[in-house]
Amino acid sequence: MEFDLIASIRSRARQREDVVTGIGDDGAVLRPAAGHELVVTTDVLNEGVHFLASNPPADIGWKALAVNLSDLAAMGAEPAWCTLSLTLPVPDAAWCDAMLDGFFELADAHGISLVGGDTTRGPLALGVTAMGQAEPAGILRRSAARPGDDIWVSGTLGDAAAALSLGQGGDEPDPFLRNRLQRPTPRVRLGPALAGIARACIDLSDGLLADLGHVCKASGVGAEIMLAALPASPPLTAAAPADDIRWNWQVSGGDDYELCFTAPPEGREGILSAAEGAGVPVTRIGVATHVAGTGPAVRLIDPQGQPWSPSRPGYQHFT
Amino acid sequence: MEFDLIASIRSRARQREDVVTGIGDDGAVLRPAAGHELVVTTDVLNEGVHFLASNPPADIGWKALAVNLSDLAAMGAEPAWCTLSLTLPVPDAAWCDAMLDGFFELADAHGISLVGGDTTRGPLALGVTAMGQAEPAGILRRSAARPGDDIWVSGTLGDAAAALSLGQGGDEPDPFLRNRLQRPTPRVRLGPALAGIARACIDLSDGLLADLGHVCKASGVGAEIMLAALPASPPLTAAAPADDIRWNWQVSGGDDYELCFTAPPEGREGILSAAEGAGVPVTRIGVATHVAGTGPAVRLIDPQGQPWSPSRPGYQHFT
Repeated sequence: MEFDLIASIRSRARQREDVVTGIGDDGAVLRPAAGHELVVTTDVLNEGVHFLASNPPADIGWKALAVNLSDLAAMGAEPAWCTLSLTLPVPDAAWCDAMLDGFFELADAHGISLVGGDTTRGPLALGVTAMGQAEPAGILRRSAARPGDDIWVSGTLGDAAAALSLGQGGDEPDPFLRNRLQRPTPRVRLGPALAGIARACIDLSDGLLADLGHVCKASGVGAEIMLAALPASPPLTAAAPADDIRWNWQVSGGDDYELCFTAPPEGREGILSAAEGAGVPVTRIGVATHVAGTGPAVRLIDPQGQPWSPSRPGYQHFT
Repeated sequence: MEFDLIASIRSRARQREDVVTGIGDDGAVLRPAAGHELVVTTDVLNEGVHFLASNPPADIGWKALAVNLSDLAAMGAEPAWCTLSLTLPVPDAAWCDAMLDGFFELADAHGISLVGGDTTRGPLALGVTAMGQAEPAGILRRSAARPGDDIWVSGTLGDAAAALSLGQGGDEPDPFLRNRLQRPTPRVRLGPALAGIARACIDLSDGLLADLGHVCKASGVGAEIMLAALPASPPLTAAAPADDIRWNWQVSGGDDYELCFTAPPEGREGILSAAEGAGVPVTRIGVATHVAGTGPAVRLIDPQGQPWSPSRPGYQHFT
């Protein structure tokens, strides 16, 4: 069975010109671009933790790649190659085919080659390692924010968290929201477009508060975020019975896979132009500050100018 | 917990000079060597399939990296970087520390940097992606064997299979054999040393018969293997009650993580010299042939010159 599955995967994998040897040997052979650095990220999705067995398999395949492409985008890298490690409880060709439909839909949309992988027996899990490239000056890091920087986010926040919350409460979420949870859109074009314009960047997987907190810690800055500025999709606004519920979803929910980045105020036009070129809306949501005493690094400000705290912290593994 | 674990891993990971950014951002940033190709491989070890929960954690960590380094060696690549995806049912700092002892013992022995990873909750599994580099002319592929080539293997064959078989039968295997199963030695130095001398190469993970079969298929050749020539460790010979049991372990057992490679006869001195430089014994076990009709690509010949077949095929996933 393993070899049929590998043959099926191999037949569907499109190979870029810089793939010297793809699937089928002990390792893939790739030709890195001269003068570029290699950016590598890896994420595993486990059934029951990151997705449900009842999710459409195409969405599971899509998301396994998407969360990794989101990381590459946050580093400012152009994605190039990936590997897929597939752990299956039983061989199921139909499930695999459908899962690969979603995986390759996203890979092909961005010209990314699947160059290797592994199939093993065990509880359902998908592990992806994604590799991208960037010129050294184009790499975006968490540590590069400075006091006075604008803080920006791409797209809208809280959609996935709302879908998860509504679904867990027994409600059928709006299809737009559910799609944002199960089939997130990594900002593949935006990340590299921010090179030389943005300073720090991170992708929002654990929620704005937690992830921006990582930027603050790495950069030695604070952050002041205006809740009224957080971009909300119309379905999210419609689904939220009150502002504070929406804000909880937007700052603590996670699974947004939007980029959060900082840039000096003089870069605003450049940011907007890069975002337009990438076809992604971006919104200024606050400013980076000097670290203020012992308080929280990220301060959330409500429309009345008062500090606000979410009722639950960001997503925490193992807690 | 996840962040304590990551901090613990990060504090133990030694970074090579070509690691621009290691653990702690959205992705690792690496500086590929000019004029080299990048070789990438990935393998997952699942509890209950590839190891038992009762195995020493240091051995599990060692083996998760070892099986990937073996793949890089089989491609002729020098290992450089790796990522580790760790799926844990419950956070267990002591288990993780012990597992990392084995992982880093092997990584540090070869100057390999752990540059990223992922920790998730779920059934125990370790996924490693390893990256290495080689000059284009030094890459070894499965497809390069030619009729008339000698067929060589490194080290000894069958030790791991004997340990597994004896253990499953309720016997306590010899410590040497058990160590060969739980803590295999990837032939990291031998692979690159074969560049320009060997033709085809593969690592023996599924057993000689299955893996050499891959070489034959990819190269369009047959193979004739002399069972009497298969290198056997003294503990293996002592453990085998009969020749045919030993041969079964040696050709079908798998988990050897030795290199099997071909080279033209005029390269014998070069092979022996490269092996001596790498500190690994190598043995000529047969020859590559023209494909003979519709018979099996790999023919095993017993000491009386008669064809011989194992009583069970190589390791097959999902069967």
